[in-house]
Amino acid sequence: MLPSTGRRRVQIEGVSPEIDGGRFPIKRTVGEKVHVEVDMFCDSHDAIAAVILYRPESSQQWQEAPLFPLVNDRWQGEFTVSELGSYVYTIMGWVDHFKSWRRDLTKKLDAGQDVSIDWLIGAELVEKASQRASTEDAQALKDWATKLRSEQKHSLVLMPDNTLSDALVVLMDKYPDRELATLYEKLLKITVDREKARFSTWYEMFPRSCGEAGKHGTFADCEARLPYIASMGFDVLYLPPIHPIGLKFRKGKNNATQAELEDVGVPWGIGGPEGGHKAINPQLGTLEDFQKFALKAAEYGIELALDIAYQCSPDHPYVQKHSQWFKHRPDGSIQYAENPPKKYQDIYPIDFESEEWQGLWEELKSIVQFWSDQGIRIFRVDNPHTKAFPFWEWMIGEIKQAYPDTIFLAEAFTRPKMMYRLAKMGFTQSYTYFTWRNTKSELTRYLQELTQTDVHEFFRPNFWPNTPDILPEFLQLGGRPAFIIRLILAATLTASYGIYGPAFELCENQPLKEGSEEYLDSEKYQIRNWDLESPDSIKDVIARVNRIRHEHPALQSNKSLRFHEIDNEEIICYSKQVEDEYEETGLKSDVIVVVVNLNPYHTQSGRICLSLESLGLKSKQPYQLHDLLNDTQYSSRGEFFHVELNPQVNPAHIFWVKQYVSPSTRPMWDGNYIAPEEYV
Amino acid sequence: MLPSTGRRRVQIEGVSPEIDGGRFPIKRTVGEKVHVEVDMFCDSHDAIAAVILYRPESSQQWQEAPLFPLVNDRWQGEFTVSELGSYVYTIMGWVDHFKSWRRDLTKKLDAGQDVSIDWLIGAELVEKASQRASTEDAQALKDWATKLRSEQKHSLVLMPDNTLSDALVVLMDKYPDRELATLYEKLLKITVDREKARFSTWYEMFPRSCGEAGKHGTFADCEARLPYIASMGFDVLYLPPIHPIGLKFRKGKNNATQAELEDVGVPWGIGGPEGGHKAINPQLGTLEDFQKFALKAAEYGIELALDIAYQCSPDHPYVQKHSQWFKHRPDGSIQYAENPPKKYQDIYPIDFESEEWQGLWEELKSIVQFWSDQGIRIFRVDNPHTKAFPFWEWMIGEIKQAYPDTIFLAEAFTRPKMMYRLAKMGFTQSYTYFTWRNTKSELTRYLQELTQTDVHEFFRPNFWPNTPDILPEFLQLGGRPAFIIRLILAATLTASYGIYGPAFELCENQPLKEGSEEYLDSEKYQIRNWDLESPDSIKDVIARVNRIRHEHPALQSNKSLRFHEIDNEEIICYSKQVEDEYEETGLKSDVIVVVVNLNPYHTQSGRICLSLESLGLKSKQPYQLHDLLNDTQYSSRGEFFHVELNPQVNPAHIFWVKQYVSPSTRPMWDGNYIAPEEYV
Repeated sequence: MLPSTGRRRVQIEGVSPEIDGGRFPIKRTVGEKVHVEVDMFCDSHDAIAAVILYRPESSQQWQEAPLFPLVNDRWQGEFTVSELGSYVYTIMGWVDHFKSWRRDLTKKLDAGQDVSIDWLIGAELVEKASQRASTEDAQALKDWATKLRSEQKHSLVLMPDNTLSDALVVLMDKYPDRELATLYEKLLKITVDREKARFSTWYEMFPRSCGEAGKHGTFADCEARLPYIASMGFDVLYLPPIHPIGLKFRKGKNNATQAELEDVGVPWGIGGPEGGHKAINPQLGTLEDFQKFALKAAEYGIELALDIAYQCSPDHPYVQKHSQWFKHRPDGSIQYAENPPKKYQDIYPIDFESEEWQGLWEELKSIVQFWSDQGIRIFRVDNPHTKAFPFWEWMIGEIKQAYPDTIFLAEAFTRPKMMYRLAKMGFTQSYTYFTWRNTKSELTRYLQELTQTDVHEFFRPNFWPNTPDILPEFLQLGGRPAFIIRLILAATLTASYGIYGPAFELCENQPLKEGSEEYLDSEKYQIRNWDLESPDSIKDVIARVNRIRHEHPALQSNKSLRFHEIDNEEIICYSKQVEDEYEETGLKSDVIVVVVNLNPYHTQSGRICLSLESLGLKSKQPYQLHDLLNDTQYSSRGEFFHVELNPQVNPAHIFWVKQYVSPSTRPMWDGNYIAPEEYV
Repeated sequence: MLPSTGRRRVQIEGVSPEIDGGRFPIKRTVGEKVHVEVDMFCDSHDAIAAVILYRPESSQQWQEAPLFPLVNDRWQGEFTVSELGSYVYTIMGWVDHFKSWRRDLTKKLDAGQDVSIDWLIGAELVEKASQRASTEDAQALKDWATKLRSEQKHSLVLMPDNTLSDALVVLMDKYPDRELATLYEKLLKITVDREKARFSTWYEMFPRSCGEAGKHGTFADCEARLPYIASMGFDVLYLPPIHPIGLKFRKGKNNATQAELEDVGVPWGIGGPEGGHKAINPQLGTLEDFQKFALKAAEYGIELALDIAYQCSPDHPYVQKHSQWFKHRPDGSIQYAENPPKKYQDIYPIDFESEEWQGLWEELKSIVQFWSDQGIRIFRVDNPHTKAFPFWEWMIGEIKQAYPDTIFLAEAFTRPKMMYRLAKMGFTQSYTYFTWRNTKSELTRYLQELTQTDVHEFFRPNFWPNTPDILPEFLQLGGRPAFIIRLILAATLTASYGIYGPAFELCENQPLKEGSEEYLDSEKYQIRNWDLESPDSIKDVIARVNRIRHEHPALQSNKSLRFHEIDNEEIICYSKQVEDEYEETGLKSDVIVVVVNLNPYHTQSGRICLSLESLGLKSKQPYQLHDLLNDTQYSSRGEFFHVELNPQVNPAHIFWVKQYVSPSTRPMWDGNYIAPEEYV
């Protein structure tokens, strides 16, 4: 059978971005660019032209962005997504006979050949284009055709170098002949989220620890905590589950198998007589209290994020009403969670192979729907890798259809390919291995994978230096400097990060026991009262760093991340930049260079080799390094400069780079520890 | 809407090989293996199992090959294709509850936990499997279930290390529960060709030059040439077009614009009053003569390959009968071929944008069909990159549907992505850039691209050191040694190669002019008489090399190609190997190591560092190097040995590597120029 597209000569392949052959969408936020590359060619020597076609999935109207040739049959172009929701894009290419004609005409004229018939061919092409043109342009094209046929054509349409008049070229480019255009066989997808999907600053806190000493905290207590959280510059406040907690097999303090009467239980042991995932733990307050709290948070510029943990305590209403959603053992009991030899009798996992999976899926979705209806648009999903992958693709798709501004953060600490698959399935942001990446080579390799490969098209990292489950060894041992180091890395390596506080800002570093990453007296099992005004608190550093993040667009996305060489393995140096509107720096971009001493114990020094060109700096001109952490300015020249970082004083620089050097700048030779190589 | 596959928990991605997301088939020959890798996992901690499903496309019956885990959720498996034509393959994976159960049982037993309910779960799984089993196995499984429920279960089903009895495991593996298996969403394709698609030795020759001096050769003359060609070991004899040649704008000797009366014309200027692509130039003989010649060739083990050049001389019957298949100029004339400022008035290219393209395609296909009906199964296609790509995919597909043993060689010397796209479209073999790759780094880089990347899945290189169009500078300047060097490289770097003779074996090296790659007195324009018995002929070397190729399966495929280090940029060393049945070498494979002096002027020496392990050699034991070019044997030990190659004597070694060292072996210290490092 003859293919219907037989005359379409342009071949299109190697499209980028294209995730798993187009099976999954890429991700962007409103206003972001999509840079597209593609291999394209046709048989013979004919010239070709091409565009990217793109549109919101719900629209019928394609928009176009031109593609330009690079080398080796590679083309590139870009467009901007401007609406929330799903977009689609593809490629269209066609043989451009007019372009071939004018190229060959010039060659023949240069060779002094007879081109009398070529002129007629050109005139015909222009006449045909006039039939595709607007009334006004049609007349102009007809006039050009007349010129091409006239005796004076050389003077009327040619430039002195035998190329065609630009005016005609521009006009012809408006009316390409796409009758035989090739459409790339795949329609590729984009999920377009709101800005917070890309740039967000999270604070995790147990509401029940917000009350007075000895009392169970309430949403009202949480409200009182808002000024404190806002003062540190966080814009997402994530609460562990706020639902009733089961009593059966409830765990006691420090994960004791037997709970005491006063023990408050683990918030993730969801469900009791008061209800399940759509109910609120009465000790925290009512749904009205919650709504009041959420509104108050919004006044502080803080959005609440809820926890979605699809699992049940033995007391959850589902266990009675929908026992077919759980796995039953031959003795009639329900299978509790286990990872042999570990047992978690307080948790019943959901059986995603249940024959009644359809009702199950609808109910699980209705939980998110319920909280969406309360105005919640951010969900941190607990252990998504222990629930069936197909469910996530469906559920997230359904919710985002209704609420395209919803953000789902995948709390999966599991094997690499599973982490990435969850992101492909639709999760907006993801937890990462950052929590355990401490050395320069570990950080560099991991960040290059996250930001410089296709991974960055679908996986948005959210860096957490700690969580209620993880107090990493680095924080246990490194004291206050370790917390500041990890904070600055998390906050500047990626655009989204979060901390579990107040444990983090108060530098809480006592593990349950040696070799364990669990906190001693973990809030997972008990209420903690924190001294927020402790002199050891790093809240002021956090506030400063978060203000820098908000003021500098360079730190609000990840793609531009670039590491710079330094001759000390204990110091890491990297930059980020983004095109920006203000030009007070003398550069086209907002450029930030971060230098961090990774050793929390000892002062480290080294010679940085800055890739000036990549930052847009002219190699011979001096530039300014404005340390935003302590508002000190230094000037330098050339690619090399020296740094020395005392972790007890300040383990890092966050430099704002400017080309212009003002007279008030501290001279580089006044004894300061940064100086260009040539003066050392 | 709920997806119908919602309960299928295994995720499958990253399948290899998979060309352009499954858009194009991979290529194999009958009896070859397909090695498949895939990323696979499911949620939670459950164990999974998986198979490759494959079948001839025309069959309804899937065959299965098991997949085994590598690391990092990567799995691998392989299968063999045994029939000509198209195959399809895909992946099926499922959660293996029995495997999870027995793994967890062992862990719990090791931890001394109560497993009384676990035994019952196991018995249920075994009982369910019995329902899927053959009558005989069903009873055996029921017996196992009884054992699992019995008091003596520990002694009946457990090994001393708390793992399950192998007999039960093997039996259960026969009856996996695939009710909720995931099928990979793509059906991937394989084109399975006959062996010659992978391993072939081509000789190109102008039939008209086979006659007596001063006379136009005939097919009968070609028959007389067969013993000569067969003696050199070629198995494909490729003839430039044998059709009538146009008179209008016929080119004269050395591409003269004006032909003399006696000039025979360019065979690619196809078509005259005697007919077009389905006719035979009467000066060569009749169709019957041609058939006789083809039969005779077959007796010598030589298969004829014809040239498919889809273009017409102005005298071709199509020009009158189907003028709509050509582009018309405004003056009514037909557009001749041009690449400004060059003009080819003797050639009318076909217009693949013709509105009557359907009739055109059918007619073009019918040309191949016509020669297929004459028994021809190998076609060398002239300049396929100047004809529309979609046509090739259709035409080759149609022909191979009828004649799956057909081989199409793409004579495209064009840009890299176009070369590869033609192969993807269905060409069996392809011309390459080998013709211009002379240095070690050029050859190494190019061969690694061809053999060690996905390219090898769809692009089968056919190396030509010369063609009637190309006398490379290396051959023009390097004399007889240059021809031997290029022959050995072509014949051992890839499994298919060809030469244009007798120009090649006679070391013809006169260019049309300095700086040109055209031959002086090229056979494209005139008849040449060759002195086949010239003492300078390298026919004996060719015969030897081709015999080595036929006797050594290592040289009959490309995937195993590996380069070895040598401290001289002018010497290249590489190996090939393939699993083989005979074991006289003491190795599991046929191993060939080739060493070539790339400098045709001067003796070169160097120290080779052989990667012994990759060749299957034990590092401490001596091994034998049997130079198949001159039947000399050397022994060596360790990874280093020294070579010295005089291009005037023999510019290369083709070593057959054996672990066993016979007493008759020349000792390595007897003054021979190969000796292991330690004795030097």
